[in-house]
Amino acid sequence: LIATCDTLIEGVHFLPDDPPDSIGYKALSVNLSDLAAKGARGHVYLLSLAVRRDTPPSWFEAFAAGLRELQQESGISLVGGDTTASPGPLTITITALGLVRHGHAVLRHGAKKGDRLYVSGTIGDAALGLRLLKDTALARAWNLSAEDRAYLVDRYRRPKPRTELVIPVRNFAQGAIDVSDGLVSDVEKLAQVSHVGAMIEAGEVPLSPAARKAVAHEPKLLASLLTAGDDYEIVAAVPEASVSAFEAETKEKGVPVTAIGRISDSGGAVSVLAPDGKPLALDRKGYAHF
Amino acid sequence: LIATCDTLIEGVHFLPDDPPDSIGYKALSVNLSDLAAKGARGHVYLLSLAVRRDTPPSWFEAFAAGLRELQQESGISLVGGDTTASPGPLTITITALGLVRHGHAVLRHGAKKGDRLYVSGTIGDAALGLRLLKDTALARAWNLSAEDRAYLVDRYRRPKPRTELVIPVRNFAQGAIDVSDGLVSDVEKLAQVSHVGAMIEAGEVPLSPAARKAVAHEPKLLASLLTAGDDYEIVAAVPEASVSAFEAETKEKGVPVTAIGRISDSGGAVSVLAPDGKPLALDRKGYAHF
Repeated sequence: LIATCDTLIEGVHFLPDDPPDSIGYKALSVNLSDLAAKGARGHVYLLSLAVRRDTPPSWFEAFAAGLRELQQESGISLVGGDTTASPGPLTITITALGLVRHGHAVLRHGAKKGDRLYVSGTIGDAALGLRLLKDTALARAWNLSAEDRAYLVDRYRRPKPRTELVIPVRNFAQGAIDVSDGLVSDVEKLAQVSHVGAMIEAGEVPLSPAARKAVAHEPKLLASLLTAGDDYEIVAAVPEASVSAFEAETKEKGVPVTAIGRISDSGGAVSVLAPDGKPLALDRKGYAHF
Repeated sequence: LIATCDTLIEGVHFLPDDPPDSIGYKALSVNLSDLAAKGARGHVYLLSLAVRRDTPPSWFEAFAAGLRELQQESGISLVGGDTTASPGPLTITITALGLVRHGHAVLRHGAKKGDRLYVSGTIGDAALGLRLLKDTALARAWNLSAEDRAYLVDRYRRPKPRTELVIPVRNFAQGAIDVSDGLVSDVEKLAQVSHVGAMIEAGEVPLSPAARKAVAHEPKLLASLLTAGDDYEIVAAVPEASVSAFEAETKEKGVPVTAIGRISDSGGAVSVLAPDGKPLALDRKGYAHF
């Protein structure tokens, strides 16, 4: 049994005017993402909802529709929880319970020197989506089409959990984590508990076509995307001997994965190299709550 | 496996100036109380904490000391969670996982017509403690000693989970619930899901010596104590044939239990009788979040 728990707060993890169905979808998704990084599938979940007293029934209906959509996609079901009126911002806590065969869970602390570092999907889309929601002029500044903008906003509002990676991660990764606070920051967490270091090649980090357009207009965006978070992609440390099997199995599952670096022996430290091989300057490593 | 989840919000479930160790104790306690009502012991728990960014380390230390105290009393341990900075009130969600032998969990829906209705400990202390914290003049008005006041405030701030009742409840109760929203309201929940009714004799509801003093000075308090909540006592529906065995086992465990009424066949309805046998007028049945 794998148990994980994530809280989403209005104004911190989602915007007050995000559609309620996407808030429900995201609240459950970020927990399924945590489970996938452990090689576990969602089994059941508990939902705690702290909402304003005057929240209309239509809000609850739309919120539940978002949960239902992801329940149907993932097979997880709601078995309990708590609902309270709160004077503060909407706060959603989901605790998800997942199952994995005894001894087969993939933990953060198993990465070994020499492992290839993979990431699923693309990085930075959600951070760009959030910026586009906060500043409507940016879409034009970055020369994005309406479709580009909609894609990036959707990546922020409705991250898809990488449930298809459960089996490849379980079979081949020695350590894994999902990217919630920022790629660099989360790789650092993986490295630190594994007592190893890591090197990330910024030029190898996969970007979506929409993100590439934005970065082409504003190259210094790249560094910020590596540390922005909200990606809900999976980072996996795969030993060299399993690299081709891992790639084959992820391809079969239809999930793109990209090698972005390696585990090193520089205890706990993560270095990020620019495409020219020099260290990339970063203002921060990831989202810091405190 | 029994999973339960309770959220506590500053200003709703505890007061902003309650000592942080008591907030930690209470947050875990209310979850262990839920498990005890199912006949389950706490095994592990997850803690989600949404706190203001400027919360000092000393607050976390005291909060953790309260958790640790109840961990040591109950044997449960912390295995995960989430910590986020929030612009809103301090919000604590604990998800507790408890264990009970397969098929032996006591659920809310098993109460049957004729069952004797028991409640543990005493009712109304926490509600009085909260009123005393909000209105310092009340202690004198009710003629309470400093010890009485301290006892009632402690019952509000640090409810003890009735863990000693796990075995007697599991062995003899057909249905059980813990009293969090109010005795009448929670008995009604038990009755409704069991498709039965219930009768509570208000004069039989156990009160502490301190609560009896307050009620002696203000007799109309009694009705409010039956619906105030925050008691974290266990209500159990025990079939007539098991009554003496249940009483003997609870006595052996050192937990006082009192017969306060019976399960009836008046589908879903709860009647509360005053000591004179007439229906007791109640302004409400319990705490309503919405």
